Amino acid sequence: MSFCHGLRLLYSQLPLFSRELNRPWCRYVSSSLALSSEKRASDFNSFVPRTNTCGELRSAHVGQEVTLCGWIQYQRQGLFLVLRDFQGLTQIIIPQDEAHSHVKKVLYDAPVESVVRVTGTVTSRPPGQKNPRMPTGDIEVKVKTAEVLNSCKKLPFEIKDFIKKSESLRMQYRYLDLRSFQMQHNLRLRSQMIMKMREYLCYLHGFVDVETPTLFKRTPGVCMLLVIHPGLLQSYRQLTCSCGAFNFNCRYFQVARCYRDEGSKPDRQPEFTQIDIEMSFVDQAGIQKLIEGLLQYSWPNERGPITIPFPSMSYAEALAEYGTDKPDTRFGMKIIDVSDVFRNVEIGFVQNAVNKPQGTVKAICIPQGARHLQNKDFEALKESAKSQFNQEVLHLILKPDESLKSPLRKFLSEEQQSELIKALKVQADDVVLLAAGEHEKVCLVLGNMRLESANLLELRGLVLRDPTAFHFLWVVDFPLFLHKEENPAELESAHHPFTAPHPSDTSLLYSEPAKVRSQHYDLVLNGSEIGGGSIRIHNAEQQRFVLETVLKEDPELLSHLLEALKSGAPPHGGIALGLDRLICLVAGAPSIRDVIAFPKSFKGRDLMSNAPDYITPEELEPYHIQVAWPAAEAEANKN
Amino acid sequence: MSFCHGLRLLYSQLPLFSRELNRPWCRYVSSSLALSSEKRASDFNSFVPRTNTCGELRSAHVGQEVTLCGWIQYQRQGLFLVLRDFQGLTQIIIPQDEAHSHVKKVLYDAPVESVVRVTGTVTSRPPGQKNPRMPTGDIEVKVKTAEVLNSCKKLPFEIKDFIKKSESLRMQYRYLDLRSFQMQHNLRLRSQMIMKMREYLCYLHGFVDVETPTLFKRTPGVCMLLVIHPGLLQSYRQLTCSCGAFNFNCRYFQVARCYRDEGSKPDRQPEFTQIDIEMSFVDQAGIQKLIEGLLQYSWPNERGPITIPFPSMSYAEALAEYGTDKPDTRFGMKIIDVSDVFRNVEIGFVQNAVNKPQGTVKAICIPQGARHLQNKDFEALKESAKSQFNQEVLHLILKPDESLKSPLRKFLSEEQQSELIKALKVQADDVVLLAAGEHEKVCLVLGNMRLESANLLELRGLVLRDPTAFHFLWVVDFPLFLHKEENPAELESAHHPFTAPHPSDTSLLYSEPAKVRSQHYDLVLNGSEIGGGSIRIHNAEQQRFVLETVLKEDPELLSHLLEALKSGAPPHGGIALGLDRLICLVAGAPSIRDVIAFPKSFKGRDLMSNAPDYITPEELEPYHIQVAWPAAEAEANKN
Repeated sequence: MSFCHGLRLLYSQLPLFSRELNRPWCRYVSSSLALSSEKRASDFNSFVPRTNTCGELRSAHVGQEVTLCGWIQYQRQGLFLVLRDFQGLTQIIIPQDEAHSHVKKVLYDAPVESVVRVTGTVTSRPPGQKNPRMPTGDIEVKVKTAEVLNSCKKLPFEIKDFIKKSESLRMQYRYLDLRSFQMQHNLRLRSQMIMKMREYLCYLHGFVDVETPTLFKRTPGVCMLLVIHPGLLQSYRQLTCSCGAFNFNCRYFQVARCYRDEGSKPDRQPEFTQIDIEMSFVDQAGIQKLIEGLLQYSWPNERGPITIPFPSMSYAEALAEYGTDKPDTRFGMKIIDVSDVFRNVEIGFVQNAVNKPQGTVKAICIPQGARHLQNKDFEALKESAKSQFNQEVLHLILKPDESLKSPLRKFLSEEQQSELIKALKVQADDVVLLAAGEHEKVCLVLGNMRLESANLLELRGLVLRDPTAFHFLWVVDFPLFLHKEENPAELESAHHPFTAPHPSDTSLLYSEPAKVRSQHYDLVLNGSEIGGGSIRIHNAEQQRFVLETVLKEDPELLSHLLEALKSGAPPHGGIALGLDRLICLVAGAPSIRDVIAFPKSFKGRDLMSNAPDYITPEELEPYHIQVAWPAAEAEANKN
Repeated sequence: MSFCHGLRLLYSQLPLFSRELNRPWCRYVSSSLALSSEKRASDFNSFVPRTNTCGELRSAHVGQEVTLCGWIQYQRQGLFLVLRDFQGLTQIIIPQDEAHSHVKKVLYDAPVESVVRVTGTVTSRPPGQKNPRMPTGDIEVKVKTAEVLNSCKKLPFEIKDFIKKSESLRMQYRYLDLRSFQMQHNLRLRSQMIMKMREYLCYLHGFVDVETPTLFKRTPGVCMLLVIHPGLLQSYRQLTCSCGAFNFNCRYFQVARCYRDEGSKPDRQPEFTQIDIEMSFVDQAGIQKLIEGLLQYSWPNERGPITIPFPSMSYAEALAEYGTDKPDTRFGMKIIDVSDVFRNVEIGFVQNAVNKPQGTVKAICIPQGARHLQNKDFEALKESAKSQFNQEVLHLILKPDESLKSPLRKFLSEEQQSELIKALKVQADDVVLLAAGEHEKVCLVLGNMRLESANLLELRGLVLRDPTAFHFLWVVDFPLFLHKEENPAELESAHHPFTAPHPSDTSLLYSEPAKVRSQHYDLVLNGSEIGGGSIRIHNAEQQRFVLETVLKEDPELLSHLLEALKSGAPPHGGIALGLDRLICLVAGAPSIRDVIAFPKSFKGRDLMSNAPDYITPEELEPYHIQVAWPAAEAEANKN
């Protein structure tokens, strides 16, 4: 056999491929495999007519006869090709001698992305042609037989990670997009993390995986009627809360599909997956410890270790310091109350604010803001506060000469100016954003300004939020009830009506329910809420009081729950983690759609199959259902 | 402390409890725990304020101070009680001295099934009072402190396995029923088997767990629109078949919730769970080997080993010998063709039958039927054949003197009689059921008679089907297409339109499609179909031919599948196992409702929450949906 070594372009010499192989996910593919094979080596070749995957062969295999199956990633002039499967890439040398002219023709004629099976001998690459950046870069396979299992038409895009594709194109051809190493890696990472969670729960802590129904009755607070697209006939109901009925077992979990009735946002999907955990005899600290252990156990090696226990913060503190219930603690710029500085300052809007109940003046300090941000940035920030919250925000700059630059300056005494600088620890070139008004509103505005300023600074090239850092945070001590927006005299549940009151506040429940804190807890990672749960009420009388007296609900609708509580329900609590969002953060993916095999688009549509689709009246008849279109939509559908 | 040893009734002396502890599931509880802890010991006490479960304490714990949480199973005169949790039962001795009068009062006043936490010291039971049939029977716990965590009202039934409850009562109070050891055991077995399957797939064979959407477009053959209860607004759609879109990954599986639009039968539920497996580059033998390995690996120790490979039978053979596509091979009584015996017998209906195309005379032999069955049984069997299949069945008895007793006898020569006896291997007191007609129909009737006779014999106390035996069977070589019942000139898919033709029959596809066998395979266990799958078509042109030319479907509806096949789809195949039914058989439960935490009743209703419920027109308005009741139901709903 004669192989034209001199002529062929070697894989290592193709700059595009080399670039691809240098990307960080190449490392993940091998390291995450190590994760799955901690117990036993996975056999990827069982039950199929191949001897190896395309990611497996090394110098140790030289001389072996192998059979590989894969997709043609690249083919060059009938001399060699690169075969790809879900495990990697292998260079294949096409025989040039007459005796193998059939093999050469088969492989030469096969379009890129065709599926082939080849048999041949593993050989060492000639000196100087090894590719150290490719796991199989020491070897190549000299082919003896080849068979095209399926030919491939011209594709709308190439299956190479360095090819940029619009998201809508990726969604329309999801079955192609899923062949990319990045999607393969994300889905494998997802599978492995969830499997490790199951191990932790089942094998280490005696949990039972129990499947609960998705078809359930509509009950207040625990159920939602979900219709994916108004007028299209998908109505889904689900009992989302693990109510008293699960008391039968001390330790229950489920990886459950859930549905929500809203469009798809970058971090939301109409279908999503969560792990539900429910335990008897547990308190808040117990659930937190369990979850910390769960995340530590399932955390992929490639992301480095995480430290437990996670820090904890009350909801009041999170609101006051970060202006949100999901603080991103990877960076500072906390909200600081400067009401005391401004109490005697004669500015109308400040006086108006501080003299009202809950009135405050607060500020955040953007370090080195004057160097990186321009006037148009400050105007954009102020405009955003105005349009989103109807709130005025002022900005002050500390000049290099340590004097304040701001229209406010003339209203502040020298002493007040230095008090302000001290309170905010302002340094030269720092920018202060200041707002006056009711406590909660000012916090929310400044929390928002904090994130928007961080985005602006990062657009300018600064790194405030380390993308390799994972900051977990428990947010606790939420209020149990909130005043209804439309009628502040009435209360509604802050989370759901089964949440137990904080043990220190139980007596307040009967006197001042609005002041009661709950035993609800949220888990936040890098500013995203990835989970939430609570200790539930197990006392039937307390549950009835909450439903009937505080929330004015008809308790008959929940009679089966009240009956269950009276029938020896143990104290219990639980938590649910949103797996799509968690895994998106772990994978460092830009959207949860990158960790879901078949996601829906922004509008809840599946661009591949074009679902949801219309159903004809004839198809609906057996179900006694009719669709009554609003006039405008009916008109549109006719066309 | 003084304990009234002389007075108290010991646990071992309570005949009811003893009976309960002798039941076979008591063995399972401990053996299945061993299964889950193969790798590491599960800690059932992590994260909760107890030191042990109620099933854990042994002589080795004597002297230890322990804290237990559980339900009061039994309390006797303030002297002792039995505490139960999901792991077992522990006997608790109540202190009788003045210093502990508070503890005594708390435990004396607590109703049965109240939830309590007790702390005390493990002591050895006095000589003669140990209970060898109870895992914790060597010890008891002398209580020092006790706390009622939740009191229990009078329950509709006691939580004791020996108490007989109607199924509707069990369903209405499912949260109580789930506290029974039997249900606890079944659900734990289910969780463990599925976890072992995941291990086998993920860790041993490199599969990835990929979640697929449940909200999908309606396409022919792959989708079903499901409405749980006509007129009630749950419509569910699902792509049940793993089509070409999954080709992205070589090895995919999913434990998926599926929905079906029909009432609940003993072995059917509107929601059910299956494990879907899909592989690239695999053939039928590969999938079969994979599944045999999967079942062997996940099989619970307590059920003894299973032997692989499983036997295999063609569909034609299954129909001819067992009259069904899911033969129960635990017993004989196979169908035997006796057409040759009857070809020259001058009986009108026999001649009518054998002279038609596919005409046959067939029979089954019920061994010792004359001893165990009576005339009314034979009449019932014949009546059943008549009403279900409109088919006459005759019965013949071989008397102890080796002569036939039957009205047929006079039409049969001596030679024909002995030929018949020889063909069917009839012995004295055996009964023969005989039918004449078209091959398939006669097979179906006699297959049905075979099962009905077996039921009758077992009602009389015979054991034909060993309840501890597990007979797996592959049924293969199904026809690819069937003639439509309403129009026999047209063909429809026997399974679904993506099933690949049998490799030996590929050319027949274009000439005589009705004769083509498929690469579909069913897995049968003890006469129940527990799984099915196929090698799928991966060639776009073949798929288009099947859809367009054979099935007359509009291929545009499946354009995304055809596009995917043309884009480098590898050869692939898969299988789905119905987990509810499989686990029901493994657990030896009478109904799949006994292995599902919250099943629906026969009519698809949830008797606990009374779901599904009616939705008011106001609730439906945002979704532009109306319900139009048929007149009769509308009238009924008014009342």
